[in-house]
Amino acid sequence: MILSKKISIIGATGYVAAEIVKMIYNHPNVLLGNLVSSSSNGKYMHEVLRNFTSYSDLMLSNNTFEDVICSSDLIFSALPHGKLVEYLDYEHLQNTKVIDLSADFRIQDEEIHKLWYGFNRYDTKLVRNAVYGLPELNRNAISNASFIANPGCFTTCSILSLVPFIKEGWIEMKGIIIDAKSGVSGAGRTPNFDIQYCEVNESIKAYKVAEHRHTPEIEEQIKQICNLKEFNLTFTPHLIPMNRGILTTIYADLKKEVNDNEIHNFLKNYYKDEHFVRVQPLGIYPETRWVKGSNFFDISIKVDKRTNRLIIISALDNLMKGAASQAVQNMNILFGWDERLGINNIPYFPI
Amino acid sequence: MILSKKISIIGATGYVAAEIVKMIYNHPNVLLGNLVSSSSNGKYMHEVLRNFTSYSDLMLSNNTFEDVICSSDLIFSALPHGKLVEYLDYEHLQNTKVIDLSADFRIQDEEIHKLWYGFNRYDTKLVRNAVYGLPELNRNAISNASFIANPGCFTTCSILSLVPFIKEGWIEMKGIIIDAKSGVSGAGRTPNFDIQYCEVNESIKAYKVAEHRHTPEIEEQIKQICNLKEFNLTFTPHLIPMNRGILTTIYADLKKEVNDNEIHNFLKNYYKDEHFVRVQPLGIYPETRWVKGSNFFDISIKVDKRTNRLIIISALDNLMKGAASQAVQNMNILFGWDERLGINNIPYFPI
Amino acid sequence: MILSKKISIIGATGYVAAEIVKMIYNHPNVLLGNLVSSSSNGKYMHEVLRNFTSYSDLMLSNNTFEDVICSSDLIFSALPHGKLVEYLDYEHLQNTKVIDLSADFRIQDEEIHKLWYGFNRYDTKLVRNAVYGLPELNRNAISNASFIANPGCFTTCSILSLVPFIKEGWIEMKGIIIDAKSGVSGAGRTPNFDIQYCEVNESIKAYKVAEHRHTPEIEEQIKQICNLKEFNLTFTPHLIPMNRGILTTIYADLKKEVNDNEIHNFLKNYYKDEHFVRVQPLGIYPETRWVKGSNFFDISIKVDKRTNRLIIISALDNLMKGAASQAVQNMNILFGWDERLGINNIPYFPI
Amino acid sequence: MILSKKISIIGATGYVAAEIVKMIYNHPNVLLGNLVSSSSNGKYMHEVLRNFTSYSDLMLSNNTFEDVICSSDLIFSALPHGKLVEYLDYEHLQNTKVIDLSADFRIQDEEIHKLWYGFNRYDTKLVRNAVYGLPELNRNAISNASFIANPGCFTTCSILSLVPFIKEGWIEMKGIIIDAKSGVSGAGRTPNFDIQYCEVNESIKAYKVAEHRHTPEIEEQIKQICNLKEFNLTFTPHLIPMNRGILTTIYADLKKEVNDNEIHNFLKNYYKDEHFVRVQPLGIYPETRWVKGSNFFDISIKVDKRTNRLIIISALDNLMKGAASQAVQNMNILFGWDERLGINNIPYFPI
Repeated sequence: MILSKKISIIGATGYVAAEIVKMIYNHPNVLLGNLVSSSSNGKYMHEVLRNFTSYSDLMLSNNTFEDVICSSDLIFSALPHGKLVEYLDYEHLQNTKVIDLSADFRIQDEEIHKLWYGFNRYDTKLVRNAVYGLPELNRNAISNASFIANPGCFTTCSILSLVPFIKEGWIEMKGIIIDAKSGVSGAGRTPNFDIQYCEVNESIKAYKVAEHRHTPEIEEQIKQICNLKEFNLTFTPHLIPMNRGILTTIYADLKKEVNDNEIHNFLKNYYKDEHFVRVQPLGIYPETRWVKGSNFFDISIKVDKRTNRLIIISALDNLMKGAASQAVQNMNILFGWDERLGINNIPYFPI
Repeated sequence: MILSKKISIIGATGYVAAEIVKMIYNHPNVLLGNLVSSSSNGKYMHEVLRNFTSYSDLMLSNNTFEDVICSSDLIFSALPHGKLVEYLDYEHLQNTKVIDLSADFRIQDEEIHKLWYGFNRYDTKLVRNAVYGLPELNRNAISNASFIANPGCFTTCSILSLVPFIKEGWIEMKGIIIDAKSGVSGAGRTPNFDIQYCEVNESIKAYKVAEHRHTPEIEEQIKQICNLKEFNLTFTPHLIPMNRGILTTIYADLKKEVNDNEIHNFLKNYYKDEHFVRVQPLGIYPETRWVKGSNFFDISIKVDKRTNRLIIISALDNLMKGAASQAVQNMNILFGWDERLGINNIPYFPI
Repeated sequence: MILSKKISIIGATGYVAAEIVKMIYNHPNVLLGNLVSSSSNGKYMHEVLRNFTSYSDLMLSNNTFEDVICSSDLIFSALPHGKLVEYLDYEHLQNTKVIDLSADFRIQDEEIHKLWYGFNRYDTKLVRNAVYGLPELNRNAISNASFIANPGCFTTCSILSLVPFIKEGWIEMKGIIIDAKSGVSGAGRTPNFDIQYCEVNESIKAYKVAEHRHTPEIEEQIKQICNLKEFNLTFTPHLIPMNRGILTTIYADLKKEVNDNEIHNFLKNYYKDEHFVRVQPLGIYPETRWVKGSNFFDISIKVDKRTNRLIIISALDNLMKGAASQAVQNMNILFGWDERLGINNIPYFPI
Repeated sequence: MILSKKISIIGATGYVAAEIVKMIYNHPNVLLGNLVSSSSNGKYMHEVLRNFTSYSDLMLSNNTFEDVICSSDLIFSALPHGKLVEYLDYEHLQNTKVIDLSADFRIQDEEIHKLWYGFNRYDTKLVRNAVYGLPELNRNAISNASFIANPGCFTTCSILSLVPFIKEGWIEMKGIIIDAKSGVSGAGRTPNFDIQYCEVNESIKAYKVAEHRHTPEIEEQIKQICNLKEFNLTFTPHLIPMNRGILTTIYADLKKEVNDNEIHNFLKNYYKDEHFVRVQPLGIYPETRWVKGSNFFDISIKVDKRTNRLIIISALDNLMKGAASQAVQNMNILFGWDERLGINNIPYFPI
């Protein structure tokens, strides 16, 4: 018999948090603790998000951080960037485990963090103990962690795409380009003129060109995983008129001439034991519709013979493998459960 | 211990059938039998729909109808209208139970069926034994049935909206209007110029005005359930640029003056034991986003004091409560299982 | 030779105002005066709306109301509801003509105005002199007016649809229902959580059910045009996930049995001299895509024989015939110009 | 006085052709000749595209190619790829001028054409006399041409983006990447399962990765304009769930370190006399919504300091500057008229 764990969520009414609530609610090994929302304290979940109608056991509280820490085996923190870093101390981790969905602890290097996020994190012990929660590449560390920095959406998609080819020496380190496309839910649920319907619909744009904060996160992880001293790449995000999904198109120079088959076979073999990584057949490219609502990461490749360049195309659901379901995957690993518990559904197309 | 039932699906690659496959695949009491697709025989499910990638146990066959009948405890038939009626005999029901997703057996009255569908059904025994699969209003008959005619999407939404008020005498029989709005997936997955992206996107239209085949289905069911001799209404469907969802706005004259509270309380009470019916609070109207991906039917009302008219607004997911998940609900009832098995998820917003 | 008129626009950066700027900019008889925007004073139009890039003669000012009045032959006021009523006096009309895009002066009856808008208009002379700017039904009054209350978008679509049939006695006064569907731009460009992309996209909802302020405007106009004492109808607006367009589906009881042809011929004849009214053939129903970006109003009808009810379906572009291009049409009439000047383009499909 | 020219259109009912019809219809120097459509012969334009309702002078014919040639001063051919090449001889150009919207004559090199399009063009004189119709870079040749190969949509966007930087030696020839995003109308109006609404909506995909036919067209033009012997680049198109618009994100290595300002000033200066090229300010990136419905091409740049790479972002309307309005621009040049005639409207946002 598995002893149920008591799980709480802080910042429970955003798009990502609501996804976690759904998965936790039906998770076989979990008891729901607190759903904390300072803005909607005392309301039912369904008063904020009507899809929860008739789930009348889901009530929002504004318990203090200390209270929630004391009474939970694990906390998902979905606070905005810069908030958890104010509340959390290393000592808290004696009482509970924490999975942080924000960017506060994703970057280890303090200087780089300061440069891109504009503030310092004083609890260096906390920073050092933050484990980067990308299960396919960091499973062991996650299984022993008390504190997980859950990766960004663009980041997950980019790292899982690049690591096999960098680690095994197929591609040049210099000159890698990630051209990323994201649905609008990546911008969150906070009121924002830029994501009003008529401003976004029927249009596409690039934003934060060569300045997006996921860039140093990707670089640091690849440096660590692949043992690199220096590593810089170009990252350009685009906003797509759709609710969900991330597609990354990645360009890298091949070190030698190879053909599609050789490199495709390598990739299939590299990820053959990863349940949530799906290498699509040659000639079939990932589309965001095929991963929506799931924890799957789809990937495929094409060699551009004319320029001897590798093109990697990959897709995931930004709210799921790019945030919420990956957080649950981390929880499963951390508690020693089957990694697929509660997140093993078939993607939702057509929706 | 529950003995698993072996379930097959005929016509397995349309939008509705694919939803059934997903639910059946994870259903605790079910063994998957045959997935029949004459057009994609021998292919894997994921070769037709890439969201099924890595579900390599899902293979499409073209077993004969007789074979599938003999080897299955229950068959979901998702054949196009006019096909099952050619294959199925009353005798087949000795060997298996059948849930038909098409319109072939939804209408009992042969003349009306002929008038709207243009052909006769010769196996009158089969017609007579077809049970209309709307669980909330027909649960007993379903539990004893061998053959279920699964209701149409507009129909489910309309009947569940109207029956309480007609049956209990709140509204006039004459003059009822259903103004219905549907997402594009209602048109199915068959190639069709009218649903090409640029023809549908960023526009709205009415179609089959006063001529849609769901009209007589709604009328016949309401006549039977409410014991009416005559009953006609006006039904206008509209096509909305979105993948999924049906919203119906229904207008009916109130027999006497009532206020919102009185009639809202009546409605809440009427459906208080129905898990999948969610009566939204006064002033909150159903939106299709809140029911997407689920078996829920949401409803709310408003009294237009100035004209003493009742306005009923209701929503469901056309592929789910309007088709696939309702079919699974019918299967659960028919086998005596908990009605919610395999279809009890929280709706998907934002997706 | 036509003497050019000097035209100014107040509140120039909303969606409707920007449409007027475009039309005025290319209008053969017009000199552009002031583009007033209190919020964006001193900016170029293209700094607020990048489609105006390279139109560097379009600069926004915050000239006072008095200044603009004195220096313009005509002013389009696109201020939010409740603003112009604070600035404008009857005396101003000695110096300039005004076309008001807001709802401030659309309703004549002061009590009804107070009831629906919550405030009184003290300058009763101004109210009495406001001419309702629906050219197809009110052309003479417009041609002599100094002050035009430009109709609402739902209102234009509804009145043009109903008046022929009410005036000529085809339909019953009692029991008329307008089920209206609108794109999101109808909500304007002001920041608003309810119209954020993921809240609106892939969903449909009704709103302000039986409580929308266009209801009394429709009723008052129809009473005046058709000489009715009492007239109430039911009006339900819906929000559609698209940028532009209004479709109204209108239900009315026919006084006697007629067939489609008879009533369709009547309608064609009724509007035969109206350039901007397009009666679609029997069996063809208006779709918003066919009128987008134009001043056209499309209409068609269907008799529901089974219930002897008339169904009228009509469409227009809410920002154009429902606001901006109708305002320009009013200006053309008011100055005695060809009504089609500057607004006679073919609709934009596919866009 | 300008003598009007008689203009005919062959293949008049596709999306691009319909745009040309609209522009020609209102063009001050043009008389409309034949609108040829083999599939819709004898119908009115508005029977195929209802936005043309009430334009009852637009009738479709199936005049023979020879007839149309003889009676027109200029022909726009919007036939599918591979058709005009069967009909047109060099001799025809004695009688009329031809602007071909297809890809048949865009590529000069016969071997490359054969490789990518699979067939040979036998009339080599015709090929040699085809002038590539990109006005900003080829205006002189166009003004003397009888036969114009109108560029592809991706191609126009890519070439206008790259030529300034290649010609003036800012960037390396090797390693250029074009990551392009297109709305769905680029796929045309021919029935096609892949562009059915639910297959495209709410998803993004790459297609024809490293295999799209616009690649050699871009390469050949850049080689010619910039006098290069060898030139290869990587081109990846993506399909975006929106009707119109192309955005290209282009990556190139800078030859030396420069800053944003320097290169931005260069670009502004390079295009300072081009009415239809709009260089957006530093920090402002083109978005497809700002060019929709217009002949404008918007462009901006960003230097990625960390990798010393130039990122060029550019946008146009694929049906307009990417096809129809550019064809009209070519006609204007070819007849010696003001280049802006009939195509000088402000873009349509929000639509």
